[in-house]
Amino acid sequence: MLSKNRIKYINSLKIKKYRQLNQSFIIEGAKSVLELIRSDFDVEFVLATQEFQQKYSSILSQHKTVIETVTLTELEGLGSFQTNDSCLAVAKIKENIFLDASESEYVIVLDDINDPGNLGTIIRIADWYGINKIVCSNSTTDLYNPKVIAASKGSFTRVKLYYTDLAEYLGKHAGNKTVIGAFLGGHSLYDFQFSPKGGYIIMGNEANGVGEDVETYVREKVTIPRFGEAESLNVGIATAVILDNLRRSLGA
Amino acid sequence: MLSKNRIKYINSLKIKKYRQLNQSFIIEGAKSVLELIRSDFDVEFVLATQEFQQKYSSILSQHKTVIETVTLTELEGLGSFQTNDSCLAVAKIKENIFLDASESEYVIVLDDINDPGNLGTIIRIADWYGINKIVCSNSTTDLYNPKVIAASKGSFTRVKLYYTDLAEYLGKHAGNKTVIGAFLGGHSLYDFQFSPKGGYIIMGNEANGVGEDVETYVREKVTIPRFGEAESLNVGIATAVILDNLRRSLGA
Repeated sequence: MLSKNRIKYINSLKIKKYRQLNQSFIIEGAKSVLELIRSDFDVEFVLATQEFQQKYSSILSQHKTVIETVTLTELEGLGSFQTNDSCLAVAKIKENIFLDASESEYVIVLDDINDPGNLGTIIRIADWYGINKIVCSNSTTDLYNPKVIAASKGSFTRVKLYYTDLAEYLGKHAGNKTVIGAFLGGHSLYDFQFSPKGGYIIMGNEANGVGEDVETYVREKVTIPRFGEAESLNVGIATAVILDNLRRSLGA
Repeated sequence: MLSKNRIKYINSLKIKKYRQLNQSFIIEGAKSVLELIRSDFDVEFVLATQEFQQKYSSILSQHKTVIETVTLTELEGLGSFQTNDSCLAVAKIKENIFLDASESEYVIVLDDINDPGNLGTIIRIADWYGINKIVCSNSTTDLYNPKVIAASKGSFTRVKLYYTDLAEYLGKHAGNKTVIGAFLGGHSLYDFQFSPKGGYIIMGNEANGVGEDVETYVREKVTIPRFGEAESLNVGIATAVILDNLRRSLGA
């Protein structure tokens, strides 16, 4: 049976302050937990039903994971999401390690993405399109928020994030690489020639777009052509469309 | 002050059964309500703050809309969403009118989309890419669910939906038009030639994809090329990428 202390600890990790204090975060659901176990994250413990442990015994036995058996009722009481019917894990937060674009690589840059669902979705999209690095403004929502982890559908184990001051970062590290920004009223994405040398693709805040201090460093403003009446596209959708055009024109 | 009956009526419309009984639905937030008022929907009444009525007096005076003044506290008690800080409207549900693809037109077909956020997002994306008709399986989530309306960001006023039995519909009406389905393991979307004659683009359920009975009518299976490790893309994202490739190759 789950101890009161453990329940209290897990619940505390839903709050950023306690995640930072303990340097730990929660991962919910079978798919995400299985990807976590096979990743290079340091897993503190897994709470799982008997059924889950039987079903995935071969994967679980390959990894030195501390597993505590819980009932479905105990799990439901703990999680943030209705859909969690099998397991929950706690793992250690990774250090905030510097990332930049290597030769021919494209990196996504997020300026103040607020919605956890959007950040998680962008991580999943990046993973689909083979982008492994995302640089975020310090004001972008916390990667380790359970909603971000859930929306990333396991892709948080493969895509690396680095939080920093974007204006300072771009000033120092963009060098002579392409810095592309998504703007309403920029050049058509369909006519845009992505450089095979790689660079940075900046996506802005849901309501306010790319901030002025960051806009200074944008060398190419691109717009997704519109054929109807909707005022805008969600930032996750816009990221997918831009990356699709990138890969369509350049390949991996 | 809001009457108890009106509060009860509005709350009842959050449930499908009562929406169908009253043939009415709720629209929340300034942007959506303003688009509603300018659309051809039949508006029952609008509840709005003094501030909202002053700010948009010129638009409101052009339309014969019944407006009741409410306080912010009253509104917050009613809405489903935190962000509603100005108004809420009730309008009449439209008849379920038959739709098909006219010459050179593409229509989206949704087979059992369950998540209201996904349906709303797909309506918004369709509106961006100039697609005005969506045909839905009877099992697809209800257009008039407040979460669908909210996620569509006003695009529900421009894009028409028709609910029907899809297998029967496609059997009768697809004729010799292209019927494209999004599948894992189909032909690359990048090599696919969209016909200028128009047709149907089928998107399947979030977990199970396109159903077998509907798959029978699919003539072209297309896949969004993947360059990384994510297992899948969200159905809203996939719709956006397919429509983007359609418009990029054919234009409006």
